[in-house]
Amino acid sequence: MATAVYPGTFDPVTNGHLDILHRACHIFDKVIVGVAPNELKGPLFTAQERIDLIESNVKDWRVEVKIFEGLVVDFARKNNATVLIRGLRAVSDFEFEFQMTQMNRDLDGEIETIFLMPGATYFFTSSHLMKQVAYYDPERISKFVPLNVAAALKRKFDHI
Amino acid sequence: MATAVYPGTFDPVTNGHLDILHRACHIFDKVIVGVAPNELKGPLFTAQERIDLIESNVKDWRVEVKIFEGLVVDFARKNNATVLIRGLRAVSDFEFEFQMTQMNRDLDGEIETIFLMPGATYFFTSSHLMKQVAYYDPERISKFVPLNVAAALKRKFDHI
Amino acid sequence: MATAVYPGTFDPVTNGHLDILHRACHIFDKVIVGVAPNELKGPLFTAQERIDLIESNVKDWRVEVKIFEGLVVDFARKNNATVLIRGLRAVSDFEFEFQMTQMNRDLDGEIETIFLMPGATYFFTSSHLMKQVAYYDPERISKFVPLNVAAALKRKFDHI
Amino acid sequence: MATAVYPGTFDPVTNGHLDILHRACHIFDKVIVGVAPNELKGPLFTAQERIDLIESNVKDWRVEVKIFEGLVVDFARKNNATVLIRGLRAVSDFEFEFQMTQMNRDLDGEIETIFLMPGATYFFTSSHLMKQVAYYDPERISKFVPLNVAAALKRKFDHI
Amino acid sequence: MATAVYPGTFDPVTNGHLDILHRACHIFDKVIVGVAPNELKGPLFTAQERIDLIESNVKDWRVEVKIFEGLVVDFARKNNATVLIRGLRAVSDFEFEFQMTQMNRDLDGEIETIFLMPGATYFFTSSHLMKQVAYYDPERISKFVPLNVAAALKRKFDHI
Amino acid sequence: MATAVYPGTFDPVTNGHLDILHRACHIFDKVIVGVAPNELKGPLFTAQERIDLIESNVKDWRVEVKIFEGLVVDFARKNNATVLIRGLRAVSDFEFEFQMTQMNRDLDGEIETIFLMPGATYFFTSSHLMKQVAYYDPERISKFVPLNVAAALKRKFDHI
Repeated sequence: MATAVYPGTFDPVTNGHLDILHRACHIFDKVIVGVAPNELKGPLFTAQERIDLIESNVKDWRVEVKIFEGLVVDFARKNNATVLIRGLRAVSDFEFEFQMTQMNRDLDGEIETIFLMPGATYFFTSSHLMKQVAYYDPERISKFVPLNVAAALKRKFDHI
Repeated sequence: MATAVYPGTFDPVTNGHLDILHRACHIFDKVIVGVAPNELKGPLFTAQERIDLIESNVKDWRVEVKIFEGLVVDFARKNNATVLIRGLRAVSDFEFEFQMTQMNRDLDGEIETIFLMPGATYFFTSSHLMKQVAYYDPERISKFVPLNVAAALKRKFDHI
Repeated sequence: MATAVYPGTFDPVTNGHLDILHRACHIFDKVIVGVAPNELKGPLFTAQERIDLIESNVKDWRVEVKIFEGLVVDFARKNNATVLIRGLRAVSDFEFEFQMTQMNRDLDGEIETIFLMPGATYFFTSSHLMKQVAYYDPERISKFVPLNVAAALKRKFDHI
Repeated sequence: MATAVYPGTFDPVTNGHLDILHRACHIFDKVIVGVAPNELKGPLFTAQERIDLIESNVKDWRVEVKIFEGLVVDFARKNNATVLIRGLRAVSDFEFEFQMTQMNRDLDGEIETIFLMPGATYFFTSSHLMKQVAYYDPERISKFVPLNVAAALKRKFDHI
Repeated sequence: MATAVYPGTFDPVTNGHLDILHRACHIFDKVIVGVAPNELKGPLFTAQERIDLIESNVKDWRVEVKIFEGLVVDFARKNNATVLIRGLRAVSDFEFEFQMTQMNRDLDGEIETIFLMPGATYFFTSSHLMKQVAYYDPERISKFVPLNVAAALKRKFDHI
Repeated sequence: MATAVYPGTFDPVTNGHLDILHRACHIFDKVIVGVAPNELKGPLFTAQERIDLIESNVKDWRVEVKIFEGLVVDFARKNNATVLIRGLRAVSDFEFEFQMTQMNRDLDGEIETIFLMPGATYFFTSSHLMKQVAYYDPERISKFVPLNVAAALKRKFDHI
């Protein structure tokens, strides 16, 4: 069956991302997580750190984690994936995703985008919010990120 | 691979529905269109008419068209489908679908809902709008519905 | 210069409608208010009553008030109008209008739709809400409807 | 401290309503639940049945349950309440509430409206959806309604 | 009765903020305005300037103005406040607030968030827009900010 | 008839902008495109480059292209324009435009803002997205920008 790509910045991965990824694994034979370096936006974790944080949480899943640069449709094609997976939480997500989907279809008409909704608990998590709270108190986001991410955030903000 | 269910009223099917269905056929081995009778809402076409209008447009596709009553997750399970397909066009769609998806997950946690966006041309079609225009002039919606639906709408409104 | 059509049900006209109409009169040489009878929806006022309620409020304006049936683009063309005017108050308006605009362009590509926003005071008025409040106490909506509409609502609900 | 009114149709009350009510009880000395009969919309439960279903769930709370007709601001004033409480779940709620709040302020400027968000679990519940599911299988909504409502829905739909 | 916290950046305070604050004072015994320094975002006014601009407008109100750093729920608890107050103007506000509210509840379940809508006149004001207009012509925002803020903006932009 | 102003950054102009501009030319005698320099946001093209890219695409239209600084209502008044034109694509556009329109009305009550919707094909274009794709592969946006913009983007990103 089709391979799917789940692209994002994952700075860092949250339980919300893992929830989407887990759902995708029930539909597709293989899911490739595509980590965009996004160096210009000044990520908290390096691309390699972000890959490591994801990998130790998906060991028994049919998931591969890779860095990607360039257009996501080209990354999908190079990896023989025909589907892009996007999480959809809010109206503002919706409009941005709507624009990207139409653009990606124009760039490569054979790659389809599907949307998955996270579980209700994860409608409120975002990497950005996790970092904001962890900056003040890394203990308090343990419910929303995997253990290794909680520890990594603690290490990052201890240096500050 | 997984069988998917695409549920709806389809009163009547539009090119927007067929666009979603066509995209789904590229992802899944088999798609079952589940036609809800919706007798209480006073549909223009009977459930059987609606099924016939769909079937003649999907002859070479891996699609089966069936009537369904009851909960959509039960219909999916009876048909060995593990995925529900929903088209997503607008913010108002989004909120309704968001509610239904969470409810359906609670009703049957093994059935996942995925969302597909129609092509840009079909963001503006709806069965309701097609009927409104066809009431005055059935010729003018030929771009948005398949040929047999245009003809069926013409017959319906000639009687009026 | 171009004539514009401002279509609606106007059951009854509110100060919000008159605000949009007044703004339109500053842009166009002539504005035709197109009153849709909408008999099926069980309007409170007859189409003729609705026309009369509008007309006495626009006596010195470059406005004509007419009943219309059929497609709004055909009504515009018959009246040599090239522009449709729509008020835009809320996100939910936006999505409906978006769909209608694309459909109307497809029906007649030479007729353009423009949107105007009412003044802040009128973001909260709607014919529906006016009727709901007037049902209990017609005195209390005097700020949001013209005098003759307040009086007409009072008469209607005195009969109840 | 101020008494607050929580108005609605409650046909029937859900755990989402009770969640809002419980939160309100932590802020106000007393909360009056105002049940609108809404006879015209053909409610499933009579106003008295709806009151009973709420009352047995709020026995130890500082809550009173009353029927109300007319304008909600008048009901509040008669009960010496200065605050209206509304639950806010979705963008579509938001726009309707926005309109009602401005109107209510115009009707009675001394009564303020505040909004509360239900817990994440209850973003997906609505009386309407509960009835839709219970129609087919009343057992399956037990997580989203109190026990007596689940039983009442079962009795209602057994008659069908 | 409960003390409430109204947190924000207030760079500078607008009549919209004061409108929310005034409404809150009718509901709560005491409202603490929590000014977040937000140094990283390069505010136009220092935290102390922002506090002063607020204080001279709330002299006779039951309001205290304080700087706060760290998590807003901790600031509330330190000040014996059990309620957070947020203004709600637009759909985009709504989604952000929705996320923050759920997070804050998780961080401290005893602190409730309530939302208030500003009067219609203030749906269009924001500190950001005020600064944009004042940059070109500080005289023209006098309707939307208190006198001392208009004067302070004039002084700031005279230096430019 | 009235002159209209179509303000924006146009960094660079897209077919979506030209679609709006073309529609505006059917309604107004003259349309002035107002190019905001926006130096602070680090535009890709200089204001003069952006003007040149627009001008060669509107040679036979009743369009003038000018740089503007300061408040858009003042720019309109200086150019004897009484109408501002804004394109409206999405809910997020809507809220921002709603705020700006009310502010501009307050700044100059004689200048009206009207909204036009682009054709469906251009709901997905934005200058920002065009630059993102062109950064990786300038050939692939040829459908969404005029020829000279495609060439200019290619030259810009060849230097990188």
